[in-house]
Amino acid sequence: MSANTQQQVKSQKTAITPIRADDYPEWYQQVIKGADMAEMSGVRGCMVMKPWGYGLWELMSRDLDRRFKETGHENAYFPLFIPMSLLQKEADHVEGFAKEMAVVTHHRLINKDGQLVPDGELDEPLIVRPTSETIIGEAFARWTKSYRDLPILINQWANVVRWEMRPRIFLRTAEFLWQEGHTAHASEAEARSETKQMLDVYQEFVENILALPVIPGEKTPSERFPGAVNTYCIEAMMQDGKAVQAGTSHYLGQNFAKASNISFQNKEGNIEFAYTTSWGVSTRLIGALIMTHADDNGLRVPPAVAPQQVVIIPIMRDESDQEKVMAYCETVLASITSQTFAGQSVRAKIDTRDYPSADKRWQWIKKGVPLLIEIGPRDVENNAMALTRRVNLDEKKAVMPLDKIDISQELKHCHETLYQQALAIQKERTCTNIKTVEEFKNYFGTSGEKSFNNGQGFVKAPFCGDEAAVEDLLKSMGVTIRCIPFEQSRALGPCVITGRPAQYEVIFGRAY
Amino acid sequence: MSANTQQQVKSQKTAITPIRADDYPEWYQQVIKGADMAEMSGVRGCMVMKPWGYGLWELMSRDLDRRFKETGHENAYFPLFIPMSLLQKEADHVEGFAKEMAVVTHHRLINKDGQLVPDGELDEPLIVRPTSETIIGEAFARWTKSYRDLPILINQWANVVRWEMRPRIFLRTAEFLWQEGHTAHASEAEARSETKQMLDVYQEFVENILALPVIPGEKTPSERFPGAVNTYCIEAMMQDGKAVQAGTSHYLGQNFAKASNISFQNKEGNIEFAYTTSWGVSTRLIGALIMTHADDNGLRVPPAVAPQQVVIIPIMRDESDQEKVMAYCETVLASITSQTFAGQSVRAKIDTRDYPSADKRWQWIKKGVPLLIEIGPRDVENNAMALTRRVNLDEKKAVMPLDKIDISQELKHCHETLYQQALAIQKERTCTNIKTVEEFKNYFGTSGEKSFNNGQGFVKAPFCGDEAAVEDLLKSMGVTIRCIPFEQSRALGPCVITGRPAQYEVIFGRAY
Repeated sequence: MSANTQQQVKSQKTAITPIRADDYPEWYQQVIKGADMAEMSGVRGCMVMKPWGYGLWELMSRDLDRRFKETGHENAYFPLFIPMSLLQKEADHVEGFAKEMAVVTHHRLINKDGQLVPDGELDEPLIVRPTSETIIGEAFARWTKSYRDLPILINQWANVVRWEMRPRIFLRTAEFLWQEGHTAHASEAEARSETKQMLDVYQEFVENILALPVIPGEKTPSERFPGAVNTYCIEAMMQDGKAVQAGTSHYLGQNFAKASNISFQNKEGNIEFAYTTSWGVSTRLIGALIMTHADDNGLRVPPAVAPQQVVIIPIMRDESDQEKVMAYCETVLASITSQTFAGQSVRAKIDTRDYPSADKRWQWIKKGVPLLIEIGPRDVENNAMALTRRVNLDEKKAVMPLDKIDISQELKHCHETLYQQALAIQKERTCTNIKTVEEFKNYFGTSGEKSFNNGQGFVKAPFCGDEAAVEDLLKSMGVTIRCIPFEQSRALGPCVITGRPAQYEVIFGRAY
Repeated sequence: MSANTQQQVKSQKTAITPIRADDYPEWYQQVIKGADMAEMSGVRGCMVMKPWGYGLWELMSRDLDRRFKETGHENAYFPLFIPMSLLQKEADHVEGFAKEMAVVTHHRLINKDGQLVPDGELDEPLIVRPTSETIIGEAFARWTKSYRDLPILINQWANVVRWEMRPRIFLRTAEFLWQEGHTAHASEAEARSETKQMLDVYQEFVENILALPVIPGEKTPSERFPGAVNTYCIEAMMQDGKAVQAGTSHYLGQNFAKASNISFQNKEGNIEFAYTTSWGVSTRLIGALIMTHADDNGLRVPPAVAPQQVVIIPIMRDESDQEKVMAYCETVLASITSQTFAGQSVRAKIDTRDYPSADKRWQWIKKGVPLLIEIGPRDVENNAMALTRRVNLDEKKAVMPLDKIDISQELKHCHETLYQQALAIQKERTCTNIKTVEEFKNYFGTSGEKSFNNGQGFVKAPFCGDEAAVEDLLKSMGVTIRCIPFEQSRALGPCVITGRPAQYEVIFGRAY
């Protein structure tokens, strides 16, 4: 059975309606609702992250933060607002973002007559940061005098705003949470090495923690971050074959240093501009996680970022069961939380809420908790428990004795299953044998919006490098060049679209 | 020697100019600059928190977050923007904040002609949140149907904006970082108990972690949070006798529940409005920490939140020393980081930067690192080190053998010294024997701006409760009622200002 068909095996009854195969975009919304992760708010394009969704982000942040610190970075915090004039200093940069900015123009909501209207107009409009290169560049310019002050290795955890015309929860929201690394270096080589190092950090995090296999590579010129010299990225494939850019790392050269005047005296006593980088991942990773791992019964959370890794549901037929079942649940909980996974105590709890236990079971399945343990009066007598593995819902519940349950091993199995299933889909839906523009058109021909089942995905093929020449064709099909993957095939045929000599292989695909 | 005079003992040379006694407000700015904690940015009223300042906030957040989770709260995240109409639902609330709001009116910075000007006017202005009761209330209304859905116990870590007319770094900035707790309950008693519990959490945190002794109490009606039924607070005293409100916890009754329609079906089947609370502390706590603990040589950081608790400075006379001194420094570092303080590994590092060691010593003193260890070639031979305790700079460096240094004990001593010195000032500058309005006027008579040395502070005295009657007098002196302290004297004389029968004792003082 191929990975793709395996994904489509349905339980008799699924918790999520519609299922993926019927309406993938709506399925995505329903998974989020079923898992109680987040919801769109009354504020256009802005979401509310509920505890189960925010809890994921907290654990993701904590792991990333540790990796940033291990590579020598420190956290700092810069203003939310950027004066219009500051943003204009780097021309490509401001043009890249000008169409989607929240602009603050007033500093009061009450006028002299006591009416509630915007009042107190600002001398200069302020932009709610869409990213912080310019405001951080201004600070770096103040901080950098001598080569001794370099490198500056800073990270910021923050909210940013980009006015999205077609918001989609987690994947594209007007406000989102992210981290943005900003560094300044005395040499190009050091800055380039930083840029690559952080892409590696992202790849390790995304693969080992989120169980998302990704393709690392470089963006083509037209897809670069506005103002960057090189943009590197990791691209993930969703179950419908579309791409999500899972993280980016930019080598900015001296562009922003010149715009912000980040200069320093080098060892020889000469004044030079610094070389800067920036890199970021955001809450859209949660969208990628859902679209990769969820199934027709709801979310499946990679164990390393599951706010709860194990949930215990006590099953009491009547009040006489209560005391002994609860006491035994506490024993099981203590045994589980004394075990570790990835160097931390296992996160587990007993669900004591006043709901029928069957409802609770389905709630946790929809939330995607990796392991579910049900304990009834008979289990107490047998010193046993019934284990449900979220990644193997079709298997019969495993009834096992308490001393036989190896939680760490179970969680590893969960992670590995999620990763391997995602990798199998990525491989199956990456087409490497398309040679002509006709084949290319045929491949991407059918509409992409509900494309879970049509088998489309990535096309890895040679490209001439002339983006202008292919722009119209790609646009008409809603396809973009995702990246120039680091892993290139040895033999390079002619460009799949123009037939001209190719510069390199690229990944073509539709993207969120 | 009294605590106050003890504070004024000066080293021959002080690292901060001016000293506290000469110009307290300017000294505060210079301490922050000397410690490299933060700086005002080019954006009006907004600061940049540099790694040493943000590092403090990170450690404060982590400790608070643990306390919130231990008391059953979960983190979530709500939109940065609040539609004008939503904010207007609670009349007192919007009026309380309307004069200091950042208002977003446009969503583009480029017009059709390609000019960079605000464009795309919004149908309804959006307010950058000054606090989130209204936007969170809207969500709670969606989430609350049955008594089973209550309590909702939520905390948010976020940035908020209040357009301050006279910004002061950390204490009053246009944008600041904070946490805001928001809870909804099925009964008044439960909501009131939550309000008090969180005030206790704040007091324990501020006293045990930040070494700030505080006075817990309730705000008088005119000082309440806009829309609250009761506001509780903890008030800290700075070294100049002025107050900083270090944390607040509000019982909101059903005011916001009615405005936002947070209603639920109770066990009897009737529809009721919920009872809500909110509570918060912010980066202004860092301002309080500085104004309480710093001295004329710079910051002194309470060890529990010091980004580095111990710094080791290697002292090399020439290159031949380098290898053996560095090797020994690593041994000392390993020994120190294997010790624990407050349940965590001691945070320590070797300062290997390319600066003269005397400069490094003063940099770390100004940063307020609790313990400074200097190691030269002779120390290597003696298996010793020279220890400087930041809270006892006037004592001679203690040269001690490596196996005799008890870091945990040293850090405890540092915390206790900071706390006791602050407490002594609070006691010495709290006046409890003022009986008449003349004495009251005399006490607060002199100008408050540079009042480090004039001995003013808090007046604890009986008050009639008629705030309107005392408003003009207090305003003319720049004095406010800080709180009705929970700890009341047994005998209650007449009101210190009006001479009428008193309702309770209050704390009068000037405040930041």
